[in-house]
Amino acid sequence: MDFPSFLTSLATSFILFVILMFLFTWLSRKSGNAEVYYPNRILKGMNPVEGGYMTRNPFAWMREAISSSETDIINMSGVDTAVYFVFLATALGIFVFSGIVLLPVLLPVAATDHTIREVNTTSKGTFNELDKLSMGQVGNSGARLWAFIVATYWVSIVSYFFLWRAYKHVAELRAKALMSPEVRADQFAILVRDIPSVSEGQSKKEQIDSYFSAIYPETFYRSMVVTDNKKVNKIYEELEGYKKKLERAEAIYAESKNTNPDALKPSHKTGFLGIIGEKVDSIEFYNDKIKELIEKLEAEQKLTLKEKQQSSALVFFNSRVAAASASQNLHAPIVDTWTVMDAPEPRQLIWTNLSKKFYERIIRQYIVYVVVFLTIFFYIIPIGFISALTTLDNLVKMLPFLKPVVKLKVIKTVLEAYLPQLALIIFLALLPKFLLFLSKAEGIPSESHATRAASGKYFYFTVLNVFIGVTLGGTLFTSFKSIEHDPNSIFDVLAKSLPQNATFFLTFVALKFFVGYGLELSRIVPLIIFHLKKKYLCKTEAEIKEAWAPGDLGYATRFPNDMLIMTIVLCYSVIAPIIIPFGVAYFGLGWLLLRNQALKVYVPSFESYGRMWPHIYTRMIATLILYQVTMLGYFGVKKFKPTPVLFPLPIISLIFAFICQKKFRRFFISPALEVVSHELKEVPNMEIVYRSFIPPCLSAGKPDEHQFEDALSHVSKPGSSSV
Amino acid sequence: MDFPSFLTSLATSFILFVILMFLFTWLSRKSGNAEVYYPNRILKGMNPVEGGYMTRNPFAWMREAISSSETDIINMSGVDTAVYFVFLATALGIFVFSGIVLLPVLLPVAATDHTIREVNTTSKGTFNELDKLSMGQVGNSGARLWAFIVATYWVSIVSYFFLWRAYKHVAELRAKALMSPEVRADQFAILVRDIPSVSEGQSKKEQIDSYFSAIYPETFYRSMVVTDNKKVNKIYEELEGYKKKLERAEAIYAESKNTNPDALKPSHKTGFLGIIGEKVDSIEFYNDKIKELIEKLEAEQKLTLKEKQQSSALVFFNSRVAAASASQNLHAPIVDTWTVMDAPEPRQLIWTNLSKKFYERIIRQYIVYVVVFLTIFFYIIPIGFISALTTLDNLVKMLPFLKPVVKLKVIKTVLEAYLPQLALIIFLALLPKFLLFLSKAEGIPSESHATRAASGKYFYFTVLNVFIGVTLGGTLFTSFKSIEHDPNSIFDVLAKSLPQNATFFLTFVALKFFVGYGLELSRIVPLIIFHLKKKYLCKTEAEIKEAWAPGDLGYATRFPNDMLIMTIVLCYSVIAPIIIPFGVAYFGLGWLLLRNQALKVYVPSFESYGRMWPHIYTRMIATLILYQVTMLGYFGVKKFKPTPVLFPLPIISLIFAFICQKKFRRFFISPALEVVSHELKEVPNMEIVYRSFIPPCLSAGKPDEHQFEDALSHVSKPGSSSV
Repeated sequence: MDFPSFLTSLATSFILFVILMFLFTWLSRKSGNAEVYYPNRILKGMNPVEGGYMTRNPFAWMREAISSSETDIINMSGVDTAVYFVFLATALGIFVFSGIVLLPVLLPVAATDHTIREVNTTSKGTFNELDKLSMGQVGNSGARLWAFIVATYWVSIVSYFFLWRAYKHVAELRAKALMSPEVRADQFAILVRDIPSVSEGQSKKEQIDSYFSAIYPETFYRSMVVTDNKKVNKIYEELEGYKKKLERAEAIYAESKNTNPDALKPSHKTGFLGIIGEKVDSIEFYNDKIKELIEKLEAEQKLTLKEKQQSSALVFFNSRVAAASASQNLHAPIVDTWTVMDAPEPRQLIWTNLSKKFYERIIRQYIVYVVVFLTIFFYIIPIGFISALTTLDNLVKMLPFLKPVVKLKVIKTVLEAYLPQLALIIFLALLPKFLLFLSKAEGIPSESHATRAASGKYFYFTVLNVFIGVTLGGTLFTSFKSIEHDPNSIFDVLAKSLPQNATFFLTFVALKFFVGYGLELSRIVPLIIFHLKKKYLCKTEAEIKEAWAPGDLGYATRFPNDMLIMTIVLCYSVIAPIIIPFGVAYFGLGWLLLRNQALKVYVPSFESYGRMWPHIYTRMIATLILYQVTMLGYFGVKKFKPTPVLFPLPIISLIFAFICQKKFRRFFISPALEVVSHELKEVPNMEIVYRSFIPPCLSAGKPDEHQFEDALSHVSKPGSSSV
Repeated sequence: MDFPSFLTSLATSFILFVILMFLFTWLSRKSGNAEVYYPNRILKGMNPVEGGYMTRNPFAWMREAISSSETDIINMSGVDTAVYFVFLATALGIFVFSGIVLLPVLLPVAATDHTIREVNTTSKGTFNELDKLSMGQVGNSGARLWAFIVATYWVSIVSYFFLWRAYKHVAELRAKALMSPEVRADQFAILVRDIPSVSEGQSKKEQIDSYFSAIYPETFYRSMVVTDNKKVNKIYEELEGYKKKLERAEAIYAESKNTNPDALKPSHKTGFLGIIGEKVDSIEFYNDKIKELIEKLEAEQKLTLKEKQQSSALVFFNSRVAAASASQNLHAPIVDTWTVMDAPEPRQLIWTNLSKKFYERIIRQYIVYVVVFLTIFFYIIPIGFISALTTLDNLVKMLPFLKPVVKLKVIKTVLEAYLPQLALIIFLALLPKFLLFLSKAEGIPSESHATRAASGKYFYFTVLNVFIGVTLGGTLFTSFKSIEHDPNSIFDVLAKSLPQNATFFLTFVALKFFVGYGLELSRIVPLIIFHLKKKYLCKTEAEIKEAWAPGDLGYATRFPNDMLIMTIVLCYSVIAPIIIPFGVAYFGLGWLLLRNQALKVYVPSFESYGRMWPHIYTRMIATLILYQVTMLGYFGVKKFKPTPVLFPLPIISLIFAFICQKKFRRFFISPALEVVSHELKEVPNMEIVYRSFIPPCLSAGKPDEHQFEDALSHVSKPGSSSV
């Protein structure tokens, strides 16, 4: 990419960003859009905007984002979100402190070195204004390279400092959350799996109760045996579906009655897609169905609770310390039985995974690892195969009815241009979901853990395919011929291409933050979808609420994408320091924008008290080591004699990582007793704690249904104590 | 080694063994030797021999050994010894079951194959009767090799079966020991290290007490801060030394008075070695010294308890479950502070290691690993250097007074023959002590753990240097020339030499069990030393008791030596099946003999409830994999095409090891709560439990000294309850 086209793309992205910003300011001032721009505040029962919509300063959101404290974030969006901002701030800190030393020092050093240009311009002349500012510009084995060696150390030291501070801070955040005087149901429960088979004449429930009450005679409260809810859940969902349909039919009827008092009751056909079959009165039909299903559900609930008990259970204790301690202890001498872990929040339990057996989980894990490995390294093969098959001619052969459409010239051109990439685009869009599916298939019992696992997998995919793929792949393919003749020239090729790729990545980062963050802030797509749905589809309140449900921050893809940017900027920070301001802009703008989104838009779907952190941290260290190894390789390629002075860096990073993990990691796996022994603000109502873990499909439809629902959603409120 | 000389050495060893056996029968029937042959029974207050010495059948010990049950072993010698017998029985089982299939099948297959002999006898004729029975005899790539492939699988399967059974059985033994209704002090305590520095205005003791009573308000009993006992211990030992000398002087005086009523009181000179200085009355002098030291000790005790508190403590709980649970829990959010582990027995605490810091322990561990690595691989270099320096001529130069001695021809010849090896012999004799020293230098807090660590190091030393060293080293050096010409011939050389080395190892194993076990059973050396000491040195009862103190089984060297034999026999089991009966004899005879020694002779110096096992197990698996890889290599060298059918074996072994460790290992690290929640036969007297951990140097010399000593030795007896 030459310099003018780089400037053009930069300018285009920037203009797009400015347009989206103004669009956001304009749209968010309309009160009809409040559900799109302030859903988190609305759901928390707060006034969407303080001071009304129209009087709002267009930049009010920025001021609010900057002035919001970490406590605000924790209150509005939980500890996990606060940890995400620690991550953003850490990356920002690393790049700011790297930049204020590297930019004023390295750019002049590179720009004033003429040794290479004088040699090369005559032959090729590919150097442009940007490349002038990179390390590629500095002559091999020149004394000026010492400045770059020092810079490499500086960036590493800055990273160690910020990483250490961040880990310590996150540990404090987690401790503070765990010692909170609020009663949280998950702090009183543990998850017990791999319970051995019952001895004769004893029920599973009795077995578990007698086991734990023998070990914890004073603190054991009660147990809840995990059941196979597949069938009861299916009935429950069917029932809920009919309830929604009934509500919708009633709303339609009421509406049509308003305009025409003699309106007919709504009706539909019972057959396939409502096209064929007998015509029935909808309201009556749904009411009958619901009655029928409630009976079925109750019968199935009884059956499930009695006959479908699995070899796992949730065990409840009447104190936080007892539960935290029990979750860490070895209970049986045969280690693969009675395995325990701390219970996740009720809302993030993956019930179908709770009863997976010990070795089944291990085997599943390894299979998933193999599948992920194959996906990362060979995903291009099936996609290439599919896109080869789906050429336009083949498509027409298989689906003859497309023929008239394809004959149009415009459509044909477009299709021919995009069809080959279609499979790849679909694959990349579905990949996060596929990785989350794989993570759940490992047998992981909680949503937050599955998200972490999926995020890790996605990180490897992006770093390996985007960063290393572009850098090495592109270089190797274009210079394949020269390498063939002289295998040693591979290093020369690399040395030349690394700084040149910098321009590509500069554009990539700029695009990511200008366009990506512009879309993020303006929420154009959710806005359009919401208004369309509201106008044409939604009939009931519940349906409208569903239409604007904001979702969560989506850590499974957000972290890996940020990590990719971090990897790129870090690896090029010394080779082409001009990339650092782009990194600062990405993480600075990200911090600001997402602060707004976290406070006003997204609603977290789980709380894991910062357990994401050790995973992020490990990947940041991996990135740091990748950077150090890249520098080692690059200096080696430059044939700079004192390159070995960089050898200690990766070793220091490993020792640093080792110490950090030894010092902090275990606290992110097990709750520390010192922390949970802090006093609660009230004696926990164990009945409510217990009920909050009952899945909706088992609690619904019973006479005391509302009590159960109450227990599910408001754990800390004292409720009724009937069993 | 040719066949007749092999038979000669076998016969010699056997005759030596028979002689030692009869010597044992004769000597052990004399009641004056009871302290040498039955010390364990005497120390336990039992009658040394049931039925009197003279009436004993010469083979009574065998009957007694065979008829003794595992419970007898546990009662007489503890769980660790029982685990050792499980190990012996496992090795025995593997070899017996391998032998009954391999011997009748493989020996005829090998003996009737003439392909190689016909080719080779003409050229070299080195084949002897023994080699005929080995795999070296079978032609390359012959169909007969299939029998050996099947045999390789059979030995592996037998090993899996016995290893699995053994692990399960040992876990049961450990569980049984931990759930015993006896009150054992170490089950009520945990060791807390890395306690952070005290905040202003608080003592260490207060800090610890308030920390643990906040977390365990109901079960926390008391804490004991670890102090730096170096100085107080020195005074205590000096005091004990003078007490012994006083006792001795009094005994001498009483004796001489018996023969001569006017005998002088014993006296000695106070200077160097009692040769120079003022002459004093011994009894008076020692009495004065003791008085003086007691005062000094008391002052130092007070000072130590107050001023020399370290950052570790023993914390006591009033229930086994509470202590077991506390030893597994994470207490502080900063993981490298307040680290906990279950307390070892009081007698095996290594006090000087208790206060070592977290990272100091890690660093020490890595340094020790490096030192051990260097020792294993390069020990021969300094030894060669030293023996080169200590030639006879150099020795005479340095120590001129040796000259007249060296001039004698006989002495000169002997010295010249043995001096070069002297350094090596001394090194090998000191190695176990050196490895134990290194293990303690790691900062390990208990004797049993240090023994395990030393045993592991010694295992790597013996296997690498003896087994691999002899096999590969010997072969490579002798055939260096042919390899120089054609590097590929190294494999041919190996294929030829592996079966030939079998004869060497056969002799080695036979020597080990005939001579080694003969000396073990007859206890000739301890017997002679005891009688010499008793006659010429010992004056008091205490001194005599010290002279026959039997010591323990010495796991640190016993296990690695047995493992070496197991490695040799396993690795040669298929190549030269004739070695299997020797393995059976080694482990069978060992089981029988050591059963006698465990029941009657050795007194264990610690009890770790079978924690040795996972270490032994790991090494047995390593041996098994070494065997499988050797076979793979050997078949490969034989150019046998279907060799890859052996590839799954090492992988199966790894999976097998993985499952075993997952299923059993953690129980050997942490006590399972299910086990310790069994009821005790009495309410524990916590005062006695607490006092049993007070080191003698801190409890001695006080007015209530005898109470303390009582608390130290008989924990389960109810004692006084004054503080």
